[in-house]
Amino acid sequence: MKLAKQFFLVVLCIASLSLPAFAADPLPSWNDTASKKAIVAFVERVTKESSLDFVPPVERIATFDQDGTLWAEQPMYFQFFFILDRVKALAPQHPEWKEKEPFASLLKGDVKGALTGGERAMLEIVMATHAGMTTEEFAQTVKDWIATARHPKTKRPYTEMVYQPMLELLTYLRANGFKTYIVSGGGIEFMRPWTEKVYGIPPEQVIGSSIKTKFELRDGKPVLVRLPEINFIDDKEGKPVAINQHIGRRPIAAFGNSDGDLQMLQWTTAGSGARFALLVHHTDAEREWAYDRASSIGRLDKALDEAQSKGWTVVDMKTDWKIIFPSELPK
Amino acid sequence: MKLAKQFFLVVLCIASLSLPAFAADPLPSWNDTASKKAIVAFVERVTKESSLDFVPPVERIATFDQDGTLWAEQPMYFQFFFILDRVKALAPQHPEWKEKEPFASLLKGDVKGALTGGERAMLEIVMATHAGMTTEEFAQTVKDWIATARHPKTKRPYTEMVYQPMLELLTYLRANGFKTYIVSGGGIEFMRPWTEKVYGIPPEQVIGSSIKTKFELRDGKPVLVRLPEINFIDDKEGKPVAINQHIGRRPIAAFGNSDGDLQMLQWTTAGSGARFALLVHHTDAEREWAYDRASSIGRLDKALDEAQSKGWTVVDMKTDWKIIFPSELPK
Repeated sequence: MKLAKQFFLVVLCIASLSLPAFAADPLPSWNDTASKKAIVAFVERVTKESSLDFVPPVERIATFDQDGTLWAEQPMYFQFFFILDRVKALAPQHPEWKEKEPFASLLKGDVKGALTGGERAMLEIVMATHAGMTTEEFAQTVKDWIATARHPKTKRPYTEMVYQPMLELLTYLRANGFKTYIVSGGGIEFMRPWTEKVYGIPPEQVIGSSIKTKFELRDGKPVLVRLPEINFIDDKEGKPVAINQHIGRRPIAAFGNSDGDLQMLQWTTAGSGARFALLVHHTDAEREWAYDRASSIGRLDKALDEAQSKGWTVVDMKTDWKIIFPSELPK
Repeated sequence: MKLAKQFFLVVLCIASLSLPAFAADPLPSWNDTASKKAIVAFVERVTKESSLDFVPPVERIATFDQDGTLWAEQPMYFQFFFILDRVKALAPQHPEWKEKEPFASLLKGDVKGALTGGERAMLEIVMATHAGMTTEEFAQTVKDWIATARHPKTKRPYTEMVYQPMLELLTYLRANGFKTYIVSGGGIEFMRPWTEKVYGIPPEQVIGSSIKTKFELRDGKPVLVRLPEINFIDDKEGKPVAINQHIGRRPIAAFGNSDGDLQMLQWTTAGSGARFALLVHHTDAEREWAYDRASSIGRLDKALDEAQSKGWTVVDMKTDWKIIFPSELPK
C-alpha cells in the first residue's frame, strides 16, 4: 500500500515535471517549413518507445560543426580575429616582427599579404599566438578576449553572433535525451572556456583541432605546456576520426554547413537505424551572409550535391529561420 | 494554490526517490578502516551544499586507472593475453611467423623470448594484432574475445577479475553526481566495447592509448581503418595530457595503483579546492597478488613515496577490502 502510494506520487511528479516541455513550440525561431518538420519527425521517431526506430538515450549522440553552423564565420573565421588581436598584443615583446613576415603584414592590418606565405605562414602565426604558455594561461587569454572583443561589422560580442534557431535546436535535442557535441576545425582550447555558457555544451563535449601539450613540474607544480607542434586537424576526414577517438560511438545526427563537414555527415548517416544529417545553407545576404560553392570560407559545394542526392536536410536560412541572432528576439 | 500543490508533490517525490540511496552502506566490501573513511569524508565535503568545499556536479570528475586499479594485472596485463590469442588465431594467415621473431617465440608460448626484441618487438606484435582492420571489425574481435577468454590462474572470464570494492566506489561516486572516467595505458578500443557493461562507464568516458585511424570510402561506404602507427601512449606524463585533451577539466579525484599513475595524481591534486588521490597497494598474495617496488608490471615505487609524503590515501588490499572479486559475494 505504501509502495503503491509512492509509485503514484512518482508518476504524478514525473507527469507534472514533464508537462512544460511539451507546452510550447520548442523551435520558435524556425518557420514551419520542411526543415523544421524533418527535425521534429526525426526526434519523435528515435525517442518514442513504441517506435521501430527507438534509440536508447545513451546512444543519442548529436555532433555540431561550429563555424558557420552554430555561429557566423564571415568575413573570416572568428578565431582569426583572436589571432590578429594576439599578434598586436604580443608585438611589443617581439620587436623583430616589424620586419619579419608574416607578422609585419599582419601588424599593418594586411591579412591577405600575411597569408601569401601559405600554410607555412599560417602555421607560424598560429604557433606564435597559441603555443609557449600553459593551458591555464591560454584559457585565461581566451576568456578575456571573448568577453571584450567585438565583431567588425556588427560591433557585437562574438558570443552574440550565434544562431538563435541553432541554440533552440541544441536545447530541444538535449530535452529529448541527446548528448550534444561540438566537432569543429577550430581550436579545442579556443572553444572550451566559453561553450558551456554560450551553447550549454561542457568542455568534455567539445572536439576540435589541437596542438601538442607537455606535462612538466615547475617548482614542483604540475603544468601542461602548449607546444608549437600540430597534434590534430579536426576537419574533413579528420572529423570522423576525432569523433571515434573522443566519443567512441557513431552519432545518430550531425549538423554542418560546409564541405569540411561532409565526412562527418557521411559517417553519421552510414550507421544502421534512423539517422539525420543537416546542412545550414547561408542564403541570406541581408540578415547574415550569402555564400556557398565559390566561398573560400565555409565552402559548400560537394556536400550540397551529396545532400541533394541523399536527401539530407538543407536549411535555407532566408526562408527557414524567422530570426538569425539572439539580438532579434523581442525584449 | 495549484502551483503550491505541484511543488509539494515534487518535494515529496524527490524525497521518496532519494531515500534508498542513503539507506544502506554504499561501500559494503570495504572494511571500516582509514581508507573508507577518507573516501566518504571527501565525498561529503564536496557534495554538501553548505560545505566550504562544495563542488558543483559538472565539475565532479573522477579518473580511474584500469590495470591493477579496477581489474587485476597479473601475471601480465590482460590485453597481452588478448594479443597472444590473436597471434595464434592469425598464425594460419601468416606462415612466415613460424620462422620470424617475435612471432616464432610467441607461437611456442615463449613470451619472454619474444620480448627480448624490446620495444620494437612489442610494437611489431601490437601492430600485427591491432592494425589493418576497420574499427568495427576490431571492436567485434574484442567483444568475441572478452566473452570467451579465461584467466590462466583463476579460469574465470577477465571481466570477473574486477575488484568488487572498486565497482562499489564507482557506483557510490556516480550516485553522488560524479562523472567517472577510465584513464588507462591500455588500448582505448580494447576497453570501450565492454566497459559500459562491466563498470558502468560509457565509451565516451574511456581514455587510453591509441593507434592512428584513417577515414576511407570503401565502395561508397565510410570506414575507419586502423593504421600500424602509434597515436598516443596514455601512461605517466601522458595521462594529464590525455585528460586535458579528452575532458578539458581537471579531475577532483584520481585513483591509480602504480608509478604510471603518479602524474595523473599530481595533476589532480594540484588543483584548488578539495582534492582526493588514492593508490591501490597490492598487498594480498593469498587472495590476489602482492607486489610493489620491484615488480615489472604495475611497479609502485615513486608514487608510494609521494603518497606517503603528501598524505594520499593508500589502500592496503589485505586489510581494507573485505572481499576482492565479485565471485566472493554471497550468492
